[in-house]
Amino acid sequence: MSQTAATSPAPTVAQMAQALMACPSVTPATGAVFDCLEGQLAPLGFEVIRFLAGEAPDGPVENMLAIRRGPEGSRHFAFAGHLDVVPPGEGWTSAPFAPEVRGELLYGRGAVDMKGSIAAMAAAAREIPVEAGTLSFVITGDEEGPARFGTLALIERMRELGAIPDLCLVGEPTSVNRLGDTVKIGRRGSINVFLDVEGVQGHVAYPHLADNPITRLVAMLAELKAMPLDDGTDWFQASNLEVTDLTVGNPAHNVIPAKASARISIRFNDRHTGAGLAERVAEVAARHGGTARPLISGEAFLTPPGAFSDMVSGAIAAETGVTAELSTSGGTSDARFLKDLSPVIEFGLCNATMHKLDEAVAVADLEALARIYRRIAEAALAG
Amino acid sequence: MSQTAATSPAPTVAQMAQALMACPSVTPATGAVFDCLEGQLAPLGFEVIRFLAGEAPDGPVENMLAIRRGPEGSRHFAFAGHLDVVPPGEGWTSAPFAPEVRGELLYGRGAVDMKGSIAAMAAAAREIPVEAGTLSFVITGDEEGPARFGTLALIERMRELGAIPDLCLVGEPTSVNRLGDTVKIGRRGSINVFLDVEGVQGHVAYPHLADNPITRLVAMLAELKAMPLDDGTDWFQASNLEVTDLTVGNPAHNVIPAKASARISIRFNDRHTGAGLAERVAEVAARHGGTARPLISGEAFLTPPGAFSDMVSGAIAAETGVTAELSTSGGTSDARFLKDLSPVIEFGLCNATMHKLDEAVAVADLEALARIYRRIAEAALAG
Repeated sequence: MSQTAATSPAPTVAQMAQALMACPSVTPATGAVFDCLEGQLAPLGFEVIRFLAGEAPDGPVENMLAIRRGPEGSRHFAFAGHLDVVPPGEGWTSAPFAPEVRGELLYGRGAVDMKGSIAAMAAAAREIPVEAGTLSFVITGDEEGPARFGTLALIERMRELGAIPDLCLVGEPTSVNRLGDTVKIGRRGSINVFLDVEGVQGHVAYPHLADNPITRLVAMLAELKAMPLDDGTDWFQASNLEVTDLTVGNPAHNVIPAKASARISIRFNDRHTGAGLAERVAEVAARHGGTARPLISGEAFLTPPGAFSDMVSGAIAAETGVTAELSTSGGTSDARFLKDLSPVIEFGLCNATMHKLDEAVAVADLEALARIYRRIAEAALAG
Repeated sequence: MSQTAATSPAPTVAQMAQALMACPSVTPATGAVFDCLEGQLAPLGFEVIRFLAGEAPDGPVENMLAIRRGPEGSRHFAFAGHLDVVPPGEGWTSAPFAPEVRGELLYGRGAVDMKGSIAAMAAAAREIPVEAGTLSFVITGDEEGPARFGTLALIERMRELGAIPDLCLVGEPTSVNRLGDTVKIGRRGSINVFLDVEGVQGHVAYPHLADNPITRLVAMLAELKAMPLDDGTDWFQASNLEVTDLTVGNPAHNVIPAKASARISIRFNDRHTGAGLAERVAEVAARHGGTARPLISGEAFLTPPGAFSDMVSGAIAAETGVTAELSTSGGTSDARFLKDLSPVIEFGLCNATMHKLDEAVAVADLEALARIYRRIAEAALAG
C-alpha cells in the first residue's frame, strides 16, 4: 500500500499537519478534522470506524478507531491521540486555525498538542509495510475536556473488536527543550475531594450554644496535610496533597457560621489508588465530624523501564542523537486509561507553546518525529 | 425642684416611655427624641448640653449630657444610656413607633432597649432632691451602630467640664426572667482580627513551583485555636477564640491559589487587653508568613463586687424581693467606654424581646425600675 501511495507526489508531514490544523476543533472535536484524518489514513489501507459516544452534558463525543490488520498472528501496535484542541484565546500573530509557516516554524492551534504528532503518526504509517503487523490509530475528540466518552469509549470498542494492542504510544508533547529529551513512562494519578463540615450557627459571644464548623475543618485539614503518603519511588516523586479552596462566606463578625467547606487535590504515584486515598480522606473527615465527596480524575500508571522504553529511546537516539530522560512528572493524559489495555508510553513534540498563544512547531521536528515514530512502530511490531 | 414639679399632675413612667418611643430613632438617633428627653429633664433643673460629634461615615452623632449640680463638694452619680434603637423589621402587631399598651404590656421599639429605662431614670430623678448631690444623664444617639462618636465623645465632654461621676449606671436590659434577676458588673472585651496569607499561584501538579497560602493559613489557625488564653477568673468565663470566616474563592481544581484569608473573633476577660491579644495574634501570623489586621471593638471591664454592687442588689431586693445575680456574660455595651470614667454597673429591664418584633415591657416593671433607680442613685450620692 505505502509503495502505491508513494508513486503520486506525497504531502510532507508539515502539509499533513497543516491540513488537520486548518479544521477548527476546540473540544469537543467533530466532523471536518476527523474527515481530514480519515482522508490521510483510508488510502493507506486503514479500516476507519467513527462513532459518537455518551450523552449531555459530557457527550456526545466523536471518536475514531482506524485499524490496518497485518498477517494472521502478527503483533499489534497502536498510536493514540486526540484531535480536539484548547480554546485559542485572543492575541495571535496569525489566525489560530489558518496554519502558517513563518521561517522554520509552523504556527497554529494544535501544532504541538497534538495535530502535529498525529500527522507524524500518519506519515510514519505511510512508510510501514502492511506485512510488518497490525497498526491502529486510537483517536478521540475529547481529551482536553471531561474525557468521559473519549478514549474510554475507544478502549471499549477495541475490546469488542478483539483488537487489543501489544504496545501503545500516546503522542502528547512530552519534549521539553529539544525533540526527544523527555519520554513519559508513567503519570501520577489525580483525585479531588470536596470536604464539608456542618455545625450549629450562633453568636460568637456564646460559643457553648453553637458548634463552630471551622474549628473542626481546620483540625481536619491540618491532619490531612500531615497524613503520610510516601517518599516517592524509583520512578515517581512523592505523592502530594494540597488544599486548593476554602469556603465559608460569613460576613457577620459576631456570628459563628453553620457550615465550612474545603477542596483538596492529591497527585499520587503508583503506591496508591484513587479509591484507597478517598477512603483514607473520608476516615479523617469523619473523625472530625465532616463528610468527603471524592472525584477521581485518573489513576497512576507506570510502564517500567525495559524493552518498550528501550525501543523509544533507541529510535530517538538513532534519529536525533538525543538521550531521552524517562519521566513520570506532570499532569494527566489519556494514558491513564490506555494503560488498562497494554503497556503505554507517551512521546511527542516540544511542549513550550502548548496551550499558549502562537502555538508552534519546528517543521524539521515534524519530519524527525515521523521518522522516530516509524522506527518505534517497526521495532514494536518486530517484538 | 421635684416638689414643685409634683404639684401638677405628673406623667407616669409608662407615659414618659411612650413619649420617647413615639419618636422614631433608628441609629443614629437625632432631633425629636432628644427634644422629648430634654423636655422631661430641663423642668427638673438639669442643664442640658446637646452636641454633634464626628464626621461621615460613622458620624455625625447626636449626644446629650444633662447635669444637675448638687451642693459644692457633693458626690456625683450618672445615669447612662442611648436613645437610638435597632431597625424594627417587618411584621409587628402594632406600629413599632406608635407605642401601645395592651393588657399589662407596653409595646413599641425601644420598650426595653432602652427608652423604657431612660424614662425610669428621668422618673427617678424627679423624686431625688437636688440637695442629695450631682446627678447626670449621659445619653447618646449611637450605641447600636459604630459607636465611635457617641459615648466616647460624651466622656470627652465630661472630662472637659470636670464633671467626672463617682459611680455610673448603664440602663441596658440585663434582666432575664424577671426584673432584677441579673446585674452586669463587667463585660468581656471583643476583638476581630483579619488574617491574610499571600502565596505563589501555580499548577497543583507542580507544587514545588508554587507556594500554597492555604497550607500556612491552616497551620496558623490551628496554632491560634490552640493558643492558651486563660481558664476564666472568679468573675469571668474563660476567654475564647473563634474563626468566623475563611475565604479563598478558587474555582479551578488544578490550581494552587495566590491568597487565603480568615477572620477570627476573640471575646476576652480582664486578664487581657485588645492590644495585647492583637500583638500575640500578629506574632503567630508572622511566624506563618501571614499578616494580621486587628479591629478592637471593646476592652474587658470589671467593677469588682463591693459597695456599688451592694447598692444595686440592695435596691433591687428592697423593691422586688429578688436576689440579683452578678454576671459578666454576654456581648458588649457602652460600659466598655464608661469604665474609664468611674466604676460602672449595668442594670435594666427584661431582655426577652430586645431587638425582636413586638418588643414590649411590663408597665409594672417600668414603675418598679424607677423606684429601684431612685434607691440606687440616692445610695450612690450618700456614698
